[in-house]
Amino acid sequence: MITEEIIHRLKNIMDSEDRILMEKADLVSYSYDASFGTYFPDLVLQPISTEEVVGIVKLANEFTIPIYPRGTGTSLSGGPLPVHGGIVLDFSRWSQTLIIDAADTIAIVSPGVITADIDSEAKKHGLMYPPDPSSSHVSTIGGNLAENAGGPRGLKYGVTKDYVLGLEVVTPEGEVIRTGGRTIKNVTGYDLTKLIVGSEGTLGIITEAILQLIPRPLSTQTIMVIFDDIVDAGHAISSVLTSGILPSKMEIMDQASIIAVEEYQPIGLPVDVDAMILIELDGHPLAIKDESEIVKRVCLEVGARDVEIAKDDAAASKLWKARKLVSPAIVRKKPTKISEDATIPRSKIPEMFKRLQEIKAKYEIDLVVFGHAGDGNLHPNIITNKQDKEEMKRVEKAVEEIFATAIELGGTLSGEHGIGTMKAPFMVMELGEAGVDMMKRIKMAWDPNNILNPGKIFAEKGQRLVLVDE
Amino acid sequence: MITEEIIHRLKNIMDSEDRILMEKADLVSYSYDASFGTYFPDLVLQPISTEEVVGIVKLANEFTIPIYPRGTGTSLSGGPLPVHGGIVLDFSRWSQTLIIDAADTIAIVSPGVITADIDSEAKKHGLMYPPDPSSSHVSTIGGNLAENAGGPRGLKYGVTKDYVLGLEVVTPEGEVIRTGGRTIKNVTGYDLTKLIVGSEGTLGIITEAILQLIPRPLSTQTIMVIFDDIVDAGHAISSVLTSGILPSKMEIMDQASIIAVEEYQPIGLPVDVDAMILIELDGHPLAIKDESEIVKRVCLEVGARDVEIAKDDAAASKLWKARKLVSPAIVRKKPTKISEDATIPRSKIPEMFKRLQEIKAKYEIDLVVFGHAGDGNLHPNIITNKQDKEEMKRVEKAVEEIFATAIELGGTLSGEHGIGTMKAPFMVMELGEAGVDMMKRIKMAWDPNNILNPGKIFAEKGQRLVLVDE
Repeated sequence: MITEEIIHRLKNIMDSEDRILMEKADLVSYSYDASFGTYFPDLVLQPISTEEVVGIVKLANEFTIPIYPRGTGTSLSGGPLPVHGGIVLDFSRWSQTLIIDAADTIAIVSPGVITADIDSEAKKHGLMYPPDPSSSHVSTIGGNLAENAGGPRGLKYGVTKDYVLGLEVVTPEGEVIRTGGRTIKNVTGYDLTKLIVGSEGTLGIITEAILQLIPRPLSTQTIMVIFDDIVDAGHAISSVLTSGILPSKMEIMDQASIIAVEEYQPIGLPVDVDAMILIELDGHPLAIKDESEIVKRVCLEVGARDVEIAKDDAAASKLWKARKLVSPAIVRKKPTKISEDATIPRSKIPEMFKRLQEIKAKYEIDLVVFGHAGDGNLHPNIITNKQDKEEMKRVEKAVEEIFATAIELGGTLSGEHGIGTMKAPFMVMELGEAGVDMMKRIKMAWDPNNILNPGKIFAEKGQRLVLVDE
Repeated sequence: MITEEIIHRLKNIMDSEDRILMEKADLVSYSYDASFGTYFPDLVLQPISTEEVVGIVKLANEFTIPIYPRGTGTSLSGGPLPVHGGIVLDFSRWSQTLIIDAADTIAIVSPGVITADIDSEAKKHGLMYPPDPSSSHVSTIGGNLAENAGGPRGLKYGVTKDYVLGLEVVTPEGEVIRTGGRTIKNVTGYDLTKLIVGSEGTLGIITEAILQLIPRPLSTQTIMVIFDDIVDAGHAISSVLTSGILPSKMEIMDQASIIAVEEYQPIGLPVDVDAMILIELDGHPLAIKDESEIVKRVCLEVGARDVEIAKDDAAASKLWKARKLVSPAIVRKKPTKISEDATIPRSKIPEMFKRLQEIKAKYEIDLVVFGHAGDGNLHPNIITNKQDKEEMKRVEKAVEEIFATAIELGGTLSGEHGIGTMKAPFMVMELGEAGVDMMKRIKMAWDPNNILNPGKIFAEKGQRLVLVDE
């Protein structure tokens, strides 16, 4: 498939042969991500300029070679997997641009910048870049843009897409376009910015982004609320949000999550409760002091067992550490973790918890639930062992039922992980044939040769959920 | 063009003949909007259900009849103008659905609901619908969605698009699709919601929308800041925004605006200042009390002549009334007002003011500048008389130069009014041929017969800016 002629032409496009990788030993690093399946590319290119990307894309069109853009490979849905071989575009050698323009409250970034660095730089100017996916210290902004990454702060601040003002994009046929710009308000034609962000690398290759920053809140306050009944936790979330307060985070941990953390690294969490909510308020110190008291009163009114307002930063850090420990804690039992992100309307959280317990019992699986309760973005995690083929078949069925349940409750297949390869077979279940067709029309109009990230979002003939390497 | 057969079929589609208008006297009401030009439709249909819209759209495809959806016609860019005749779809008879679901903090609305009513209903539940276009007491949400309406609160809260979670849409070929849903987080496939919102009725007819609401801030505080030099006003805006404070509104009025208001309805504004900024803070009362003092200090530091913190609601109302009076005040001089919305990065506000004064002098026009300074969305308004053909030619040239200047300064043709007929000829200037081409591909893939709102966004052969009826 990759002929001598193609290699020769690539060497002319790329300024250096060092950035063309073809050895098996190199390719293996690009064959997986944080989801399932192993797929080898034919070669890996490490472009360092928009011009190189243009050259590569034009060549790929000429020879119909798939291109798979890749950041650091933290995708939980198969976004960067080179499922049809071809070229992986690795942005790790691209020079890191991270410019903060405080007067315009924007950041200008290149695709390989680590997400957390944007907020760190913004902080120096009294500003904030709100999106905070759990992987933000590892993941690149390019991947975050492609997948429209979320995170705990989504509740108050929205997701990646809400902070993208403009893009430089190489189209699937190798044209360079600029979308949006430097202003919050822009209604000049169709919103290609928000179409491309979250399109999982299927509609264009992002080579630069202009991100909106906001004034950094002066202070934060963490509150832990514990419940004897998880249904009360659901009510508490709604009650807080209709009391005039919008917390920056509202995270839930079920009893299984709490126990797992305590068994892993004892922090002193109450293991006999049905659920725990961690709330973070941010803003003016006087406001959050008062709001903390309102949150306490509201939660106690709807049946919380106890409310603890963190006394200082150390106490707050300890609580957030507990939340962060859930993922490493739960994989101690079994090595394989399937992290779902089926998202439901907030009012359906108690029902979703009930249904998840039924699914757990029905398929005899190990299921732990935690996540971003404030915005209905739960993370049911199934703990298993992918070597255990029999159990994996039950897990696949359980995952399918989680998807169906989320949709039945008015929710969506994916809140923040993306469709990728994992959820492509379920798109029609949520969107209907006509809905998927309108998306496909855009893909075909933009990428007639199906060059960019083929095999993602849209199910291929006979495709089904596969969690076991075949 | 509209044959007896078509009328007959329409009578079968529509449940009642009363909602098919064909008399000239009726059509005249649908021939204009708040922009320029007069165009008569062949007939007006007043659907009351999604099924009727589907029937109409399918028929229109069969006979290639243009369809022009219309709310209350407040568009400043020609959005609803039936420039190629055909059918105007008037949503005024559609039953008004406005359901607040406080637990999910959403509103479900039908297209004909008056925008301001959504916030009024939300308020009863301690919630807020933030987008506040100046026309919100007259305009419908359907029109706001089509045009992605903005408003003063865009600075802190963003625009219409930022509050749309899901849509029911009739596609240009008459299929019904649902996009998005009820959750903040949703990355299931391409973001058709944000593509359709702001597409000016060219990609689908919105028949229902699910809108996100947020907790209503507990209080507001208005502050008036006056400047001897408008350049200092620009610096003050940036300084406030990097001091950890995000005001809900930051509106600017230049001296010409202030004088116009004082001559129209004397309020006691200082007419000898170069510019005035009106700031609104919202949030917790303790926070905004403290933030008001910070705003005062920061503004004085960068050279404000005076800062007045409104003592009570009555004082605040008086100041906001002054801002609202600018539009009626300036049309007293001459009857025709051309309201532009060219938007620039915030840091370029002082430069933009300078350039606007040069344009004013060069073309000898009457130019007043006010608008949403906090987000760079200025409203240069040209006051003229459209009967004065000679002056109108100069006005057309001045408008073109305003567009070019905004783009040169890194801004955009339209911040919140839309492209419509008015700005279509200038799209390539901002987006390049490739950028416009990618938009056209979507239009052609979705609407192969060019049925929906033809003549908008994309310039037709030879189209140029026309402010004078030919």
